[in-house]
Order: sequence, then C-alpha cells, then structure tokens
Amino acid sequence: MRDVSVIGIGQTKVAEHWDRSLRHLAGDAVLAAMQDADIETADALFVGNMLSGLLTGQEHLGALIADFVGLRGIEAVKVEAACGSGAAALRMAYAAVAGGMHDLVVVCGVEKMTDTVNAETTTGLVMAADADYESIHGLTFVSINALLMRRYMHEYGVEHQDFAHFTVNAHHNAAGNPNAMFRNRITVEQFSRARMIADPINLLDSSGIGDGAAAVVLCPTNRAREYGNGRAVQIRASSMATDAVAVHDRPDPLWLSAVEASASRAYQQAGVGPRDIDLFEVHDAFTIMAALSLEASGLAERGKGVWLAQAGEITREGRVPICTMGGLKARGHPVGATGIYQVVEVAQQLRGDAGENQVPNARLGMTQNIGGSGATVITHILAA
Amino acid sequence: MRDVSVIGIGQTKVAEHWDRSLRHLAGDAVLAAMQDADIETADALFVGNMLSGLLTGQEHLGALIADFVGLRGIEAVKVEAACGSGAAALRMAYAAVAGGMHDLVVVCGVEKMTDTVNAETTTGLVMAADADYESIHGLTFVSINALLMRRYMHEYGVEHQDFAHFTVNAHHNAAGNPNAMFRNRITVEQFSRARMIADPINLLDSSGIGDGAAAVVLCPTNRAREYGNGRAVQIRASSMATDAVAVHDRPDPLWLSAVEASASRAYQQAGVGPRDIDLFEVHDAFTIMAALSLEASGLAERGKGVWLAQAGEITREGRVPICTMGGLKARGHPVGATGIYQVVEVAQQLRGDAGENQVPNARLGMTQNIGGSGATVITHILAA
Repeated sequence: MRDVSVIGIGQTKVAEHWDRSLRHLAGDAVLAAMQDADIETADALFVGNMLSGLLTGQEHLGALIADFVGLRGIEAVKVEAACGSGAAALRMAYAAVAGGMHDLVVVCGVEKMTDTVNAETTTGLVMAADADYESIHGLTFVSINALLMRRYMHEYGVEHQDFAHFTVNAHHNAAGNPNAMFRNRITVEQFSRARMIADPINLLDSSGIGDGAAAVVLCPTNRAREYGNGRAVQIRASSMATDAVAVHDRPDPLWLSAVEASASRAYQQAGVGPRDIDLFEVHDAFTIMAALSLEASGLAERGKGVWLAQAGEITREGRVPICTMGGLKARGHPVGATGIYQVVEVAQQLRGDAGENQVPNARLGMTQNIGGSGATVITHILAA
Repeated sequence: MRDVSVIGIGQTKVAEHWDRSLRHLAGDAVLAAMQDADIETADALFVGNMLSGLLTGQEHLGALIADFVGLRGIEAVKVEAACGSGAAALRMAYAAVAGGMHDLVVVCGVEKMTDTVNAETTTGLVMAADADYESIHGLTFVSINALLMRRYMHEYGVEHQDFAHFTVNAHHNAAGNPNAMFRNRITVEQFSRARMIADPINLLDSSGIGDGAAAVVLCPTNRAREYGNGRAVQIRASSMATDAVAVHDRPDPLWLSAVEASASRAYQQAGVGPRDIDLFEVHDAFTIMAALSLEASGLAERGKGVWLAQAGEITREGRVPICTMGGLKARGHPVGATGIYQVVEVAQQLRGDAGENQVPNARLGMTQNIGGSGATVITHILAA
C-alpha cells in the first residue's frame, strides 16, 4: 500500500453558528482545506457526521456537500461511527488513497448541533449507546460516562477533584486557539464548584457541544510535493478497532480494549512506541474518557491516568501534551467533526503553525477519536 | 489493486418482521453469509444503513452488529448514501480488499422500517432529498419522483399505463423468490387501477418498504478458492458517482448524469459494454427510476426505457433481464439493505442458484443502487 500524506487542512470555529447551516459549515472547511492544498478538484469526498438525519432531517451528505463545494459528480459518501465518525471517514479515505483507488481525496467532518428542528442533542448523542439495552432504561450518554467515572473513583481511590487538571489544561490551551469554543482559563477551584450534570460528572468534566466543520486533503506521499507548498504531514499509521457498545457487556468496564487494540496497532504500523509520541489529541469527551484513554493507549499505567494530569505531564511542556488546541472539552465537540479537528490540529503542530500553543519539537503526533464509550476507536499517527 | 470476489451471500426475507429487531435481521444475514463462505471470523465489517438513527434511535451500527455476530473487536463502520447505502458500503469494502488493507471482509445492508418508535418512514425517506430546498416545501420522496414521472410523460408522449410492464415483470419474478415481499402476479389492468399515491405515481409504481438484511463476504480473488466451495463470483467493476441532490439543480432532470457516469466507468473497468450484460438489477424504487436508469446506463435510448419494458426485453427471456428476483418493487426495498440484496441476487444468478428465476447462461450481471432521485449512484459488475 502507498504512503499517504495530509496536504491541506481547514476548519471553522467551533461555536453556536446560528447563521450557518450544515452545508455552509462543511463548505467553509472543505474550501479552506482545498485552498491550503492549492487544489481545485478532487477524486472523492468522505464526510464524517453522526446527527444530521435526526437533528436537521438531512441525510445523504456525501452528494450534498460535494455539490455545494463545486465538486458535483465525484464519488462522495458519508461514514458514521457515532462520535468517531470524523476519523472513521478519514480512515476510509486513507484506505482509498493507500490502496490506489484515488489520488486526491477530501475528508470533511461536520456537525450542526444548535438551531436544530427535530430533536434535542441529548436524544441524538445517546444513539451512540445501545438503544435496546442502555438508552431504553433512561440512560443518557453523559450518565453512562458518569457510571464509568464513579466506578473509576471507587476502584482506584480517586476523588472527583483529581480529574481537574484535564479541564484546566484543555481550557488553558483553548485560550490560544482562535477556533476554540471556550477560551476562558479555569482553576481547580472553579472545576470543583461547577454545576453537577450527572453525578459525579459536572459541567467542567464535560466537553461542549457546538457547530463546526473541519477538513483535510489527502494524496499519496510521493505526490505530496506537487501540492500544498511543501507543508505536507505524513499519516504514519491508521487503525480502527471496536468493542461491545453496551458498557455492561464488557468484562472490564474500566479497560477500553478497543483503545488498546487500536493504539497498539497504530504504534506497530508506525514503528514507534507510546514514548515516541510528542503530542496526543485524546478523545476527552469527559475527563473520565481522557484518563481511560491515556491508560489503554499505554501512556499511563492502569488507574494512573489522573495522576499524569496532576503531575503536569499533559501540558505543552510535559511528557505527553494532550488537547494542545483545547481538546473536545474546550475547543468544543461537534461530534462528527471532532476526529478531523484532531488531525487538523496535529497538522498545525507538526507544521509549526500552532502559534502560542506550539509544542516544542513536535515531530510525531497521535489522534484518537472514539465512538460511544469506547466502542469504536480510530487512531492515527502523523509525522512531520 | 487486487481482484476481489464475493465468496459468501446471505439474506433474510423482506417483510414486516415485527418479531425481529435491526440487530437480529443483520445477524441473520451476516451469519448466513459467513456460513456460506465457510468462515468463522473476518477482518472488518461494513454496514449499509440509512434510517436506524431516526426510526429506532440507534446509530453506531458498525460496532453494534460486529459484536452481535461474534466479531467483537474487528474494524467496523457504517456507510450512508441514502437508499444507496448498501452498495456504498460494498464499495468501501471493495476498496479495502482491492487496496490490500483487509483480506476477509463482511458487508451487511440492513433496514428496519416497521415497528419503529420515533418517526414515520416518510419523514425518514425524504432525508435523501435536499432538506433546505426540497422537503422544506412539503415535497416527500414519492412526490419528487412524481414530478419526474410527469415530466417524462410530457416530454416523451408517454401514458401512465406504458410503465405497467416494469411492475408486471417485477411481480412475476418475485413470485419465484421465497425472500420477496410481494409474490403475487399482477396484470396491466391491475396496475392501471391501483390507488393513486402522488399523481401520477400510484401504488404499483412504488416499491414496497419493509424490514430486511442482506450480506456478502469479500476476499481477494486469488484467495477465493480457499473458501466457499468454489462458488465465488468476481467483482469485475465498482464505481460511484454523484449529482446534485435537489432535482431542480440539475440542467436536465430527465437525464441521470450520475447513472451515466457510474455505469460508463463500470463498463470501462470491466472491459465490457451495455450489450454484454446478461442481467441488470436496476434501482426500480419507482417505475420512472427504472426507465431513467435503463436510459442513462446505455441499455435503452433516451425516452425509450418504457418501450424496452413493453417489448418484453426486460423479462428473463429478454435482451436485458431486470429485477430478476422481484427488484425493489416486489422483492421489497428496505432502503439501506437494497444494494446488498441486488448483489446477493446477481450472485445467485451467476452461481446458477436462482431456481425457477434462473436467467439462462447468466455470465455477467450488473447491479445499480441509487441514493435519492439519482444523486448517488453505485454500479457493480459481477462475473461468474
């Protein structure tokens, strides 16, 4: 299979875009990425989205967005894997380019979560869980994560406040990202005092939902110099793994086996280990997911994810910088777009374009996008 | 890229399965296909589905179905392209196998359209159209097709009754298919007297919605002899093209340019022409779509699709047998599953397993799955 590079990136600000429809958001990101790559056409478009059907009465986003951005006629399709939809679309695009089906492919993650007509986002997000065995009993997506967090605190003797530094770090980094939703810095005390959402998860444990779109352009690495002014970054690994959707079906709810499988395959493909990763865009939909992901990815020992954060190792100056542009928590989490935002941000870091958020000497960046509470996990490793 | 073969097929009956949930239907089809291929594991699962989020509150079908069929952990994802979701999933799977990413892949199309809790199927199906410019004005999916049919009748001087033979043929063939939904034969007179749905489309112009699932197993052709008792059929071509979603955005609404692009690319890849096709599973969601598809696929002249049907050329004994197991009209149209049913049926024909519906000397079969009113078109050509 061929090596694949990212030769263009684009993103909208994550916000409540009351004046922008889903197709406008997607169009802004796609056209920015195509301009960045200096291309005017493409062979195919892959769209990552989870909620447009339920929330806006619109499916069929592949053809819709392809036409809207001036690419009428090309191959175009939507890929869905709950909150992992963005990176799942990227992986399908990666397969098409690596395998030789296409040379020039655009991937767009987009989600429109405010100003919706048909349903509440809470109804939408729980579609990531098991409808017949979880949500039917009244569980929401946040309450499933609350059960995990409570179990973690019980098993490992951790207090709620011990999770604070995930949020402090995310907001600190978002302050330097003009595309982030929440750019206010917060303190440990503010974290502890935040309003309870689903005990023990409070408002500042939770990522913010919003509207947004991000896009990347891929091509074979050996053609990357034709485009993008020599600023390509290479996809060194791409992997996807799954687990039971219902958390109660897993033998050990506190061990995200799909994270372990996806990350270890990615390390193997890239020929690196966890210690070689210079920054990690982790799927911090809730602080508990950040802790569990760091552990199953081999970046912290089991039960020690929160201590990595407390020790300052997740900051830009630490051993494993995470959420370097704000993460899901503070950049915002437009669910189907998040996986592409992560890749765009890693590309910014590897290009040296992250401004005041630049991680020094960033050569190898990892992204991990998760659908559900760990049921679908897509990991990518990118290199400068 | 590697040649790819279908080494296993499975399907449920299309029906109102009040006692079977979405995952049970998918499981039945997947396990049947895996048994047919004589395999017990797979590298990846691709699911085609359009409506499960809106109708049953369940997204994230990749991980959900992988786990349910005993494949917990494997790569799994859902692909959506409205009513073309099934074949779109097949195409992603084809890319993964042809490109070398995976060796053994299962593709499942599934749709649960009855016994739903959240919304009506009419609300669901119109998500294939343009929400901001078509459905917002009250157009349903059938009424969009009714406008096309009215225009066709006006442009080409065709009467409604001239479309009858598409339906007569479909029901005739469904009578011999135990998995079909409507196995009653009908007459031209019954067609003409049928209840009006959206003028000029009546009940017997319209395919029947239902619950169902179909599945196929793919592997590289050079490994096909290891599996499936030597009954593999080869995928000789796979192609996808798109068009504007909103019909009013197309320069010529009666010419399905995405059908033309997709079919002509498929002919080119397979090194054949329209006259070499022994049978064609066409996307006859409505009789008008069958006529337009035959024309843009090069199997009838422009404006002459209905005459091909009237002349008996679409029957099993004709020049271009279509809907050989009942088609969308009479086998039934569980939307996200339809594209895989088409491939399963062509495989049955090419294996010589179509029973009383067998097309004599079937060597080359084409399937064409359409999302929306021609906005996404996926064509596959298979060979014995």
